[in-house]
Amino acid sequence: MSATRSGPGDGGALIELDEATCWRLLASRPVGRLAWCQAAGPVLVPVNHTVEDRTVVVRTAPWASMVAQVDDSPVAYQVDDFDQVTREGWSVLVRGTAEVGYDASGGPEPWPAGSHAATVRIRPVEVTGRRVAPR
Amino acid sequence: MSATRSGPGDGGALIELDEATCWRLLASRPVGRLAWCQAAGPVLVPVNHTVEDRTVVVRTAPWASMVAQVDDSPVAYQVDDFDQVTREGWSVLVRGTAEVGYDASGGPEPWPAGSHAATVRIRPVEVTGRRVAPR
Repeated sequence: MSATRSGPGDGGALIELDEATCWRLLASRPVGRLAWCQAAGPVLVPVNHTVEDRTVVVRTAPWASMVAQVDDSPVAYQVDDFDQVTREGWSVLVRGTAEVGYDASGGPEPWPAGSHAATVRIRPVEVTGRRVAPR
Repeated sequence: MSATRSGPGDGGALIELDEATCWRLLASRPVGRLAWCQAAGPVLVPVNHTVEDRTVVVRTAPWASMVAQVDDSPVAYQVDDFDQVTREGWSVLVRGTAEVGYDASGGPEPWPAGSHAATVRIRPVEVTGRRVAPR
């Protein structure tokens, strides 16, 4: 997608972000959304994450339905930030394959209570981002 | 999922939200993420929305690839809000079917520049939400 400049009063321009900027923005926020596909359509779950060696790592309970469903499957991880007043913002989307592990190391400290003995590591295939520039 | 109470120091409780609360929270925020499934896995796009008669409505360009891909297909729409400091927050997920229209009425005023002559209306099949309560 090429950047398109807008005229006055018709909203901001959408500008593509380079991959280095995407990784920097991903690491700048603690929370994103992990998405995967079921027969009935997509599911999105908000989780907190860390960025480790150009992978996104989240932790969850080993018995979470997510774990069984995402392992070795295509997933997406999305982070964004928007300002309601200025209508500026950005979003980053990591598309790749999830790899479930049960090592105690790696990943973020989970926010909700309960076991988080499983790690879901997202190995990226494509990393893209966009920014809505001010009018 | 039933609500689980946590002990001290191990994170907050995850509490399920009723559907009325989910709709109120959906209407309280201007921006969410529309997700759909491609052969290569899920895609998430942040968009702004309105809630109209228990449907979620977004606007986009009629030539956007999203329009061709989501019409009459299973999609999900997700809205959340988290506080990095207190680690409290909530999320709402609408799963349903997208219906594309080309009427000028309905939906939000789009943030980015360009044509937004298409509406994507999400007819819900399932509306769920969760809250992470303070520790």
